[in-house]
Amino acid sequence: MPTQAIAQMPGADHHHAGLNHLATPCLVLDRQRLDANIEDMAQRLAALGVAFRPHAKTHKCIEVATRMEKAAGFSGLTVSTLREAEFFAAAGFRDLLYGVSISPDKFARASALLAAGIKLTLVLDTEEVCERLLNCLADAKLRARVMIEIDADGHRAGLEPDDPTLLRIATQLTASPYSDFAGIMVHAGESYGCYGADAIAAHAERERAAAVAAAQMLRDADIEVPVVSIGSTPTARFARDLSGITEARPGVFAFYDLVMAGIGACDRNEIALTVLTTVISHKPSHRRLIIDAGGLALSKDRGTATQREDCGFGLIVSSDGARVYEGLCVNRANQEHGIIELPKHYELEEFPIGSRLRVLPNHACMTAAAHDGYQVVEGCEATGEYWQRCNGW
Amino acid sequence: MPTQAIAQMPGADHHHAGLNHLATPCLVLDRQRLDANIEDMAQRLAALGVAFRPHAKTHKCIEVATRMEKAAGFSGLTVSTLREAEFFAAAGFRDLLYGVSISPDKFARASALLAAGIKLTLVLDTEEVCERLLNCLADAKLRARVMIEIDADGHRAGLEPDDPTLLRIATQLTASPYSDFAGIMVHAGESYGCYGADAIAAHAERERAAAVAAAQMLRDADIEVPVVSIGSTPTARFARDLSGITEARPGVFAFYDLVMAGIGACDRNEIALTVLTTVISHKPSHRRLIIDAGGLALSKDRGTATQREDCGFGLIVSSDGARVYEGLCVNRANQEHGIIELPKHYELEEFPIGSRLRVLPNHACMTAAAHDGYQVVEGCEATGEYWQRCNGW
Repeated sequence: MPTQAIAQMPGADHHHAGLNHLATPCLVLDRQRLDANIEDMAQRLAALGVAFRPHAKTHKCIEVATRMEKAAGFSGLTVSTLREAEFFAAAGFRDLLYGVSISPDKFARASALLAAGIKLTLVLDTEEVCERLLNCLADAKLRARVMIEIDADGHRAGLEPDDPTLLRIATQLTASPYSDFAGIMVHAGESYGCYGADAIAAHAERERAAAVAAAQMLRDADIEVPVVSIGSTPTARFARDLSGITEARPGVFAFYDLVMAGIGACDRNEIALTVLTTVISHKPSHRRLIIDAGGLALSKDRGTATQREDCGFGLIVSSDGARVYEGLCVNRANQEHGIIELPKHYELEEFPIGSRLRVLPNHACMTAAAHDGYQVVEGCEATGEYWQRCNGW
Repeated sequence: MPTQAIAQMPGADHHHAGLNHLATPCLVLDRQRLDANIEDMAQRLAALGVAFRPHAKTHKCIEVATRMEKAAGFSGLTVSTLREAEFFAAAGFRDLLYGVSISPDKFARASALLAAGIKLTLVLDTEEVCERLLNCLADAKLRARVMIEIDADGHRAGLEPDDPTLLRIATQLTASPYSDFAGIMVHAGESYGCYGADAIAAHAERERAAAVAAAQMLRDADIEVPVVSIGSTPTARFARDLSGITEARPGVFAFYDLVMAGIGACDRNEIALTVLTTVISHKPSHRRLIIDAGGLALSKDRGTATQREDCGFGLIVSSDGARVYEGLCVNRANQEHGIIELPKHYELEEFPIGSRLRVLPNHACMTAAAHDGYQVVEGCEATGEYWQRCNGW
């Protein structure tokens, strides 16, 4: 491999302690990068004066959550499934925001957590669910914290900030003896589609403005709005002003990934998660490496396909994490086969059968979810620790 | 919903026993369709005179494998990971073909299965791995069945049928006291990119011809080639002649999916696997349903994106399986949110919050892998059975 094609990744250690004892494919989590990512995000949010309620959907892991818990401004976790809520509650995390609209079929499981004394906050955005939830809580003689989701950018769910329904639901939640109206939350999903610090900062400002406008509308009606919560890693990292916001719920910042790097929300050398893989065959006629990380181990997420640089199913890094192989990516992904087509400046012999590579993921949340847990490394040394994930629903 | 928009799916029962007690999102497996798919494939292959070695990578499930074991011509399972091999071996399946190139890092686990008396067949396509494997087997005083992978269509791994390396490896395997040369295998991956019975049959013929040519080259050199094995559901289903082939390894036929329907390899009403989901919110301003099956529950596989009909992240069926909602698909998939944009001829009120839908998957292997197991139904009635999967590596 020609030297000019090698980009050194700062922070990577150059002796090769090797991860060769690990069965592949597997997730490798760099604890130093993880810690740096947590520290950076917590400090930024602290400087902006908002609490840190990281989203656990990316890592789904007690050990990662425990590290976040020690960071500045930590105010509890956000979760994306009730299974996560149950998992983290069992591990002692008692302040949990279930960040997906609660639906009637899930009332019973949510109620069980409330009955167990968990400070579980629920989210909704329709009057209908609000009424049904309050009836259910009344029947069970339980009281829940409830937030209303606001839509800042037409991306997904949530009420428009000026929708009169917002006031009606907030009034109902404030009046009921079975709920505490906890505030409003918004997620700037569209920020994933822009590029660079200025554009992300503009999205962050739109997200902030939508949240603050919604809160103001309610306060004008004498409704208390204790929490005004924003989401999204890019906006949390690049916001310049979060006046009026009380907490942020970034998720993917813990690991980062190529989609985040592709919009300029992180550097590639901040990505803490890779998939360790083995070269299992060569196909000389097609100048092709076959690796044992295919669509299942990497996920089929092609989030970089529409970005400036299409990273295929992931970019290739040396097994010690020290080198990014310029121009190499997983071009195709069958279920258990990944295919890397070698550009001209590489030879098959540089990647012997049995040798190890690491793949930077397009979308860390999706890639991580294909695995049971993380092999934890420090730089290029395996620590021997294995941290389990909580997958499923 | 206007009546003309409803396509009735034959075989679906019209009373609504309901799956409402199931927590969503979850995989729903229709046992009647599964059994019909198994029976159809086994009968076709029997009529063509080849053994049935179904690929377990789609289902990864003991109960499904057990049903396949009873079908005509069953000759053992194909597996895609050593974890599957260990899982099925522990359940009594003793004749297993590990259908992905074995690499040196996996010798120890494979050897453990051989030492336990499992009839495990390994696959390789390089002289280097062959030598290293034979050395390893010699050290362990074990004997393995080994096949050589042939490439019929440039799709993935394998030797060209006329590559002289083939003869060298086969000679080595035949001569060694530590291996039985079991034969050759081929997988016509390119058949997924064509359309219709005639085109698939042409791919099947190319696959057959490549396999037979490779076998003939070896036989001309006085090497016995006991097994000549082809893969792929489309080619196994639409092959018109399999002269010279001894076994077939179809996988996705058990469940089928929209990619298979999109190439004409099955009808939509043969798809046995769906994801049950709940409508968790409405966004009236965007005529949008929010469902609790997002990218994790459905997978991010967009295999239909390049087909005649792009099915988004899956087509929508009523919860009793009786109706395909014409023109409805999951348009976007965030991690735990699926978004369905309603075309003009539907109203939000037809899909109340809390109601259930089912999503036909683009790619059953990928969708199933996101879940721990299957909720088993017969038509529209839940049987109460839950069949576990073996995920991971």
